[in-house]
Amino acid sequence: MPEQLTHYGSKISVFAQRTAIALREVNAEYTDCDVDFDNKPDWFFRASPVTTLVPVIAYGGPVAPPEQPSAESAKISESAVILEFIAELFPSAAGLLPKDPVKRAAARLFVKLLDTKLVPPQFAWMQDGAPPDEIFEVLQTLQTLLPEDGQGKYAVGDEFTIADAALAPMWARIRLIVGKGIGAKEWGREEHIAAASRALESPELARFVAYADRLLERPSVKATWYEDLNVVYWSKKAAAHAHE
Amino acid sequence: MPEQLTHYGSKISVFAQRTAIALREVNAEYTDCDVDFDNKPDWFFRASPVTTLVPVIAYGGPVAPPEQPSAESAKISESAVILEFIAELFPSAAGLLPKDPVKRAAARLFVKLLDTKLVPPQFAWMQDGAPPDEIFEVLQTLQTLLPEDGQGKYAVGDEFTIADAALAPMWARIRLIVGKGIGAKEWGREEHIAAASRALESPELARFVAYADRLLERPSVKATWYEDLNVVYWSKKAAAHAHE
Repeated sequence: MPEQLTHYGSKISVFAQRTAIALREVNAEYTDCDVDFDNKPDWFFRASPVTTLVPVIAYGGPVAPPEQPSAESAKISESAVILEFIAELFPSAAGLLPKDPVKRAAARLFVKLLDTKLVPPQFAWMQDGAPPDEIFEVLQTLQTLLPEDGQGKYAVGDEFTIADAALAPMWARIRLIVGKGIGAKEWGREEHIAAASRALESPELARFVAYADRLLERPSVKATWYEDLNVVYWSKKAAAHAHE
Repeated sequence: MPEQLTHYGSKISVFAQRTAIALREVNAEYTDCDVDFDNKPDWFFRASPVTTLVPVIAYGGPVAPPEQPSAESAKISESAVILEFIAELFPSAAGLLPKDPVKRAAARLFVKLLDTKLVPPQFAWMQDGAPPDEIFEVLQTLQTLLPEDGQGKYAVGDEFTIADAALAPMWARIRLIVGKGIGAKEWGREEHIAAASRALESPELARFVAYADRLLERPSVKATWYEDLNVVYWSKKAAAHAHE
């Protein structure tokens, strides 16, 4: 039986939405604590001593208010590490990590490629005003990893795994920014939004887009998605890099 | 019982030494294939279709000569993913992934920090002639993750885990380059070697150095370390960036 579990996340954070999705998928009982990650309170650095980032999980030790993290709980950082931890704490909630070692490796490779290949250009685009082209090159590579048509609904088959939990928050923000045209008119990013929009409609990416859109229908993804807050947050980021 | 397993590695590669160490730790039966990764043969891209990098494992399918990779085997890329795969294929060879989920998470975080924080400055130093200072800042952070004195010989306790397999090849090369002063006199990198040497002797890093040196005594690490080839290889890299 798992011990006490406190999840330090944020309604805005891509990476904390990953772990929030996983916690919902396994029906975990946990205490949730939303951290203002642009203005972190002092006590948070006792909860996240290594990386000072959300998400972090405090596991075990005495039950304590999130704002008073116990020195006795284990602190687990890095969304990819936490996804594995959640999958292992709740092995009966099959799916997050498949039984087949080859599929488990495929799910881990997918997460690894997201973090090393997709995160840099996606954040450069969302936060720093870079053009989006590289994002869609990476998505084409990821598309080659998907199961053949009819062989599975998700990244490595019919089960919703850590790979899907890792992508869904990234995809939700791509869809949001392109769909709402955030930054397009007000801040002179028309071309970037138009290029992204064309890429999403292109036949070359159709298999990937169909798969990724399916993720947004997953109840765990819907329940952890705060559209209004994300509109405000990414609009501010776009404004900060207007006309650079 | 595991199926056929072919390991595509290289005696020079940091990342392929990681997986070679893990295969020795679990006493795996496997076919080894050394790839010239600066001049990759055409057939290699059928063995490593996603990343085109070593290491890669071909698992399952018919037994085939390494130079004729079967389309039926699963191809598993990325050293961190392969370390987990090996640990899971050979669960009875305890240690590579501890039983305690918190220790497993600690081992995974260690690997993650190596790949995101240590790999960039270490390769910038070895390959591109950058100063080594950032390497030792990262090692100080890693030192804070080590067990307290007397609480364990390795990164997360008394068991040799994927964390240790991931660090050992990186540490072996730091020790080699500093110990032999590779590039110091011939190519004008005296200051970088001297700075690295001072850092390795400093009391602030003593706990980390004692731990990391212990890794180099591990039989699996010794058996997968080719000093002469590494001297030649890293000397060439130093020469290529002389006096930049």
